[in-house]
Amino acid sequence: MFITFEGIDGSGKSTQASRLYEHLSNLLGKGMVLLTREPGGWSHGDMLRELLLHHEWRSWSEFFLFMADRYEHVHEQIMPALSNGLTVICERYIDSTLAYQGWGRGLPVDEMKRLFSIMMLPVPDLTVWLDVPIKTAMDRIRSRKAPDRLEEEGFLCRVRHGYVKVFEEDPQRIKRVSSDRDKDVVFVEICKLVEAFMDESGKRR
Amino acid sequence: MFITFEGIDGSGKSTQASRLYEHLSNLLGKGMVLLTREPGGWSHGDMLRELLLHHEWRSWSEFFLFMADRYEHVHEQIMPALSNGLTVICERYIDSTLAYQGWGRGLPVDEMKRLFSIMMLPVPDLTVWLDVPIKTAMDRIRSRKAPDRLEEEGFLCRVRHGYVKVFEEDPQRIKRVSSDRDKDVVFVEICKLVEAFMDESGKRR
Repeated sequence: MFITFEGIDGSGKSTQASRLYEHLSNLLGKGMVLLTREPGGWSHGDMLRELLLHHEWRSWSEFFLFMADRYEHVHEQIMPALSNGLTVICERYIDSTLAYQGWGRGLPVDEMKRLFSIMMLPVPDLTVWLDVPIKTAMDRIRSRKAPDRLEEEGFLCRVRHGYVKVFEEDPQRIKRVSSDRDKDVVFVEICKLVEAFMDESGKRR
Repeated sequence: MFITFEGIDGSGKSTQASRLYEHLSNLLGKGMVLLTREPGGWSHGDMLRELLLHHEWRSWSEFFLFMADRYEHVHEQIMPALSNGLTVICERYIDSTLAYQGWGRGLPVDEMKRLFSIMMLPVPDLTVWLDVPIKTAMDRIRSRKAPDRLEEEGFLCRVRHGYVKVFEEDPQRIKRVSSDRDKDVVFVEICKLVEAFMDESGKRR
């Protein structure tokens, strides 16, 4: 099972992904779940993550660097884990690219999808989209001890709109979870989604 | 005018590109010609060049890193120079990607061309393909004081075959120059090609 977490910065992805990792590790057994993230979640990923932050890239270049990182990540981490029967939880994946570089920066979304398919990137079984108002997200980021680069508000609005579009095109895979609530309430909803998916795929077998 | 030099390692690109740069600088005036190269020919290009050599990349990842490098290079160096009326001489460009990552590594050539076009990469006016037998190229590389990474012979054969295919599809733009001869003879032939192109484009105006 391949689960991804998506949403703008400050939507709570890291927190919820970690909790789900703990929960599924208890349920399925230690070592049966991989928790990873993009960009940078592979052996030399720090180099690329560093490079992405080190310089102000043009939109296409940024897109290509994310894609190089993804291709290594998928082949080094995600695909071997899935082949070995592990459940993979990944923070940010293809939908981040569509929302940020596509809808956010204006690169052609359909061409990106075409490329994902040619590259034969595995499609997640379930994507949890943590949706949060821009204002809440910005407040959360500002309150962090070491805040990430704070994106400009207009850009984040376009990215959030991008997630809406991506969600509308694949509501079967992508589930919207309102993240503007207590963390525990959000986590319970995520667990229900994951369990529903597991039940269903169990029945299909 | 946008001129590119292409060919496998050891085909004499650097030598001939430098000579043409000197020649055209004398002809058109100092500061009227830009000599550049890929990968790495822009302000932060060393970072990417370093990264490309630092790690053994999968084919798609390598392709994406070259593309990020190219997009920055084109927008920082090539396009501003062309807009200012300069003649640009570039060592390696889109045809290297088609020959190396496409024909050499097996990535889909048509999809690459499609991407070049969506990205609106400028197409060279003239491409000098320095063609040389694999054996000559390998001997030349081995004799260098600090040899580049020596590619495996079978791979270089596929790349050379790639250049043949790329050339066949665009003989109007790409001119084959046999580089298995004395450097001066090769340079005279290149000058003739460039002058013929200049005469023709002068007439078209």
